[in-house]
Amino acid sequence: MEFDLDKIVREIRSFEGITRKNPIGSILEEFNTEMISSPDIEATFGEDAAVISHGDDLLLIAADGIWERLMNADPRWAGYCAVLVNIHDIAAMGGKPVGMVDVLSFNSKKTCTLVIEGMRDAVKKFDVPILGGHLHPDTPYNILDIAILGIAKKGCVILSNSAEAGDVIIMACDLEGRVHPSSNLNWDSTTLRDKDVLKEQINAMRVLGEAHLVHAGKDISNPGLLGTIGMMIEVSGKGAIVDMRRIPKPEGVDMIQWLKMYPGMGFVVAAEERHTSKVIEVFEDHYLSAAEIGVVEEGTIFSITDGEKTVKLFDFSQDRITGIKG
Amino acid sequence: MEFDLDKIVREIRSFEGITRKNPIGSILEEFNTEMISSPDIEATFGEDAAVISHGDDLLLIAADGIWERLMNADPRWAGYCAVLVNIHDIAAMGGKPVGMVDVLSFNSKKTCTLVIEGMRDAVKKFDVPILGGHLHPDTPYNILDIAILGIAKKGCVILSNSAEAGDVIIMACDLEGRVHPSSNLNWDSTTLRDKDVLKEQINAMRVLGEAHLVHAGKDISNPGLLGTIGMMIEVSGKGAIVDMRRIPKPEGVDMIQWLKMYPGMGFVVAAEERHTSKVIEVFEDHYLSAAEIGVVEEGTIFSITDGEKTVKLFDFSQDRITGIKG
Repeated sequence: MEFDLDKIVREIRSFEGITRKNPIGSILEEFNTEMISSPDIEATFGEDAAVISHGDDLLLIAADGIWERLMNADPRWAGYCAVLVNIHDIAAMGGKPVGMVDVLSFNSKKTCTLVIEGMRDAVKKFDVPILGGHLHPDTPYNILDIAILGIAKKGCVILSNSAEAGDVIIMACDLEGRVHPSSNLNWDSTTLRDKDVLKEQINAMRVLGEAHLVHAGKDISNPGLLGTIGMMIEVSGKGAIVDMRRIPKPEGVDMIQWLKMYPGMGFVVAAEERHTSKVIEVFEDHYLSAAEIGVVEEGTIFSITDGEKTVKLFDFSQDRITGIKG
Repeated sequence: MEFDLDKIVREIRSFEGITRKNPIGSILEEFNTEMISSPDIEATFGEDAAVISHGDDLLLIAADGIWERLMNADPRWAGYCAVLVNIHDIAAMGGKPVGMVDVLSFNSKKTCTLVIEGMRDAVKKFDVPILGGHLHPDTPYNILDIAILGIAKKGCVILSNSAEAGDVIIMACDLEGRVHPSSNLNWDSTTLRDKDVLKEQINAMRVLGEAHLVHAGKDISNPGLLGTIGMMIEVSGKGAIVDMRRIPKPEGVDMIQWLKMYPGMGFVVAAEERHTSKVIEVFEDHYLSAAEIGVVEEGTIFSITDGEKTVKLFDFSQDRITGIKG
């Protein structure tokens, strides 16, 4: 397999799934995050979920919306995905999802019904209920925002900002699936899987967190694989190199398309090299394909390689994805 | 003071703050709420916040958005109110607000900055942090949705659906304030109050809940005083009568306008008659004006009276506000 590394760099650097994350850092500055002073609050912005200490447990809370274009293209799938991305925000932290609340704004009853059907499909698949919310039945737009509560054991949460130089980068995802008919940037494995398998997949990061096998991790979201790794190392204040040859990919899907896809059930972690085989084994035990695909490095450079040539994808001393420094 | 009860009935029955709640019940039917099967889940739809049992505590989670017209009229005040209504969702349940997450979608950087300024104003006033969220920097609309996590003591939560026939209805609110310059339906007391007073006001329902002094309660939200009482008794499967002469009201504000206002810091509770003076005392100790304004009754009729004449406002055997039955 040959890779046009320069083309990959051009495509990824201009990929909207990544560039639309750029305003986050400067907007957070407006938030005055130093106001967050409670000692119970263990993690906030830059993480997939905020972490609050509570007795022997950690409470996790996250919120996520979906792109309007997905809502317009396929409201039912949009409703499904809104639930899915929230469950992943908790799963990625090593947490157990407990329940969700939603704010649904709509102007079309038909769209509303389809969105709710999609949410219900996902609630049934993943067994995480919608517990309440708010309804705007009279808006000029159709929007669904969801927030989720999760629980993790104290000391067992997986953060994004704690990757260390020398860590291996391991990617895990479910390669059994399809390009979703409504979006060529959505890899859909979950609608084709049984509940029992999904429960195991969602559990994988929790097992890794409780066994203290990884330093950092995230779910692979709209910025795609390289965008997600980029966010993890940017917030960790590190660099990385990823070997294109090692990236697990469904057959028949173009590599650049794959790199831009939301894989539906995918995670990246940074772990000490000595834990590599154990981490991969945990993922595989949880019905996920996993492989070591790169290394975290000191510095600010995120490069990709094909084994012969290495090219710079981002230099976080000049470039930014979110601009959040952990 | 004389009241044109028929005019009040006409105005309240056609008030958009109430009528826009109508679709909720039928939409909830689409949600298949029977899927919520976990024994840890103590309350869901129809409550200001969902309630989940966790150890010796209850976790509360709620989500709320704001009317688009408020966002267009005054983005900074909209950002402030989005935080305020979420804090009230937790306070109304007798909970302590812990932190929030937001989904912010915008098309104008200027609007975004103003919204965040408003959120920050409220975060500073109420000392409840924004802990994370999601950003859509490229939408055709400006929207802010917020979700909040709260904690309450087990057995001390105040639900909406548990008002009992014979209970007195007590209203509490902060009459020291102003009609907000950006919305004649927003009574603003909180921006004029010190943090210490706000903390006490937010605490009032928690004190009532922990002392088991009330059967049910809600914060007075966009449906206004009568709309909020209506939602409480509708979901409780009861009727009520409210005496217009007893309703605390800021001087110089028209009664019909007042009945449609979001009072910014207002609650209604249903309590056993023997607790009336104690409940009023608790509210007043927390810088809120409080008065007994009505009685919960068996049946489905919600009436208003001026002491001489009594007229029907809603009959929940035919009418609905949310249509949710507790």
